[in-house]
Amino acid sequence: MKQDLDFDAVSVANALADAARDAIRPHFRALKTIQNKKHGREFDPVTEADQAGERAMRAMLASLRPQDAIHGEEYGQTPGTSGWTWVLDPIDGTRAFVAGLVSWTVLIGLVNHDGDAVVGIIDQPVLDERYIGWPGGGVLRTKGGETPLQVSTCEDLREAVISTTDPFILSPAEQGAWTHLRHTARMVRYGLDAYAYARLAAGTIDLVAEAGLAPYDAAALIPIVRGAGGLACDWRGRPAKPGGQLVCAANQGLLDQALISLRRSAD
Amino acid sequence: MKQDLDFDAVSVANALADAARDAIRPHFRALKTIQNKKHGREFDPVTEADQAGERAMRAMLASLRPQDAIHGEEYGQTPGTSGWTWVLDPIDGTRAFVAGLVSWTVLIGLVNHDGDAVVGIIDQPVLDERYIGWPGGGVLRTKGGETPLQVSTCEDLREAVISTTDPFILSPAEQGAWTHLRHTARMVRYGLDAYAYARLAAGTIDLVAEAGLAPYDAAALIPIVRGAGGLACDWRGRPAKPGGQLVCAANQGLLDQALISLRRSAD
Repeated sequence: MKQDLDFDAVSVANALADAARDAIRPHFRALKTIQNKKHGREFDPVTEADQAGERAMRAMLASLRPQDAIHGEEYGQTPGTSGWTWVLDPIDGTRAFVAGLVSWTVLIGLVNHDGDAVVGIIDQPVLDERYIGWPGGGVLRTKGGETPLQVSTCEDLREAVISTTDPFILSPAEQGAWTHLRHTARMVRYGLDAYAYARLAAGTIDLVAEAGLAPYDAAALIPIVRGAGGLACDWRGRPAKPGGQLVCAANQGLLDQALISLRRSAD
Repeated sequence: MKQDLDFDAVSVANALADAARDAIRPHFRALKTIQNKKHGREFDPVTEADQAGERAMRAMLASLRPQDAIHGEEYGQTPGTSGWTWVLDPIDGTRAFVAGLVSWTVLIGLVNHDGDAVVGIIDQPVLDERYIGWPGGGVLRTKGGETPLQVSTCEDLREAVISTTDPFILSPAEQGAWTHLRHTARMVRYGLDAYAYARLAAGTIDLVAEAGLAPYDAAALIPIVRGAGGLACDWRGRPAKPGGQLVCAANQGLLDQALISLRRSAD
């Protein structure tokens, strides 16, 4: 049975994003502490800001929606009773954050009891850009107001602007698929993390493909891409669940062209 | 004989940057026309904004410094009589501009009769960030005021944040050098064009290496990196002239470690 949205989830998500902004913004370009989650050569920065952001969102949820579950990147899973789960990544793009770049974002996704992401926010506090998606629609909210999100009309991969965060973290088979896309597309952008999906929803990027995503990397993106009229699928072309291999495209024509390459490397 | 700065070049450069901002800003995320300089598969977008930006800067120079030469990315070379040349790239990072990303910048460099860049501006209008460098100093100017530019203290390549714009446009030998750096460094960022050097001057990126630069890609960067206390060299470690292979680093220790790899692929 489909789980109906019986509360104003967009308002709750906005309250979470506001709380995270206030907690994170002061730390940008003022880093003191960078901890390593893993020892050795692999570098996974976790900042004070990351933890402060998630704590602020958890405090807000304890007040507004104590019955909902939480899955946060920093503090893990907290059970709930409503069937709804808030999936939180206080700073997606921690590498960009550390390097002083504004492509990091706050990710907030609402997932139903079937594991489908239905409401999402990608928030960039420095740029004052908040991308919001829900079943059937999406907006970009700034201090200047709200603009409807609408994907591009590009239907030819040879004319498309495509993106992936890091071509070097893909598996060899995935790299093969990506290399094929890269040679076909008009233009490629790297290193954007969730912000690439935000710009896809806003119509300036046409296709994004990534692999190895965690649920908290992906839950926020899917409703925004879909709300803007785009498609979010796994690398076989099936509607995406949050995590693993993800391809988002402005339309079916573009997606079909990309799947020719991606499907061969699908999990 | 050294050519002394006998006029307020920073004020002129700021006037140029203001003019370019006004001309370019309205076009961002509102693109109508993208022309191709080259036919075929290589994509080199030139926007109305690019041309309007350079025209605005040329008009300002005709008024303020008619005796100086101009070398612009869009409209080529205009001779002068003073020995000074303004080297202009109205939109560096046109790919970022087209993709709706804010890592594009306006580049303004002042080069003396020996071909050395002595004053530079990297301006990002959307973020309201203007990085300014001159002999002996540099600032980041925003609406909030001015902050001195100061490179990081990172002296170990294994701890460094490094950047190059596109690892796939390097020659095979250059790619070999870059791959070595990439595997040594803590973190890598791609696709930033001149903005990587701005963040190097501001202390959040530690080393940037690129090849195949045009004079208008590089003239603005060098005075800013040096004004912030950093080093700008070719891949043999000699002080950089604008163009070709460029490596900028926060300090000599970091540069020496990178040159171990880069020198083997130096022109």
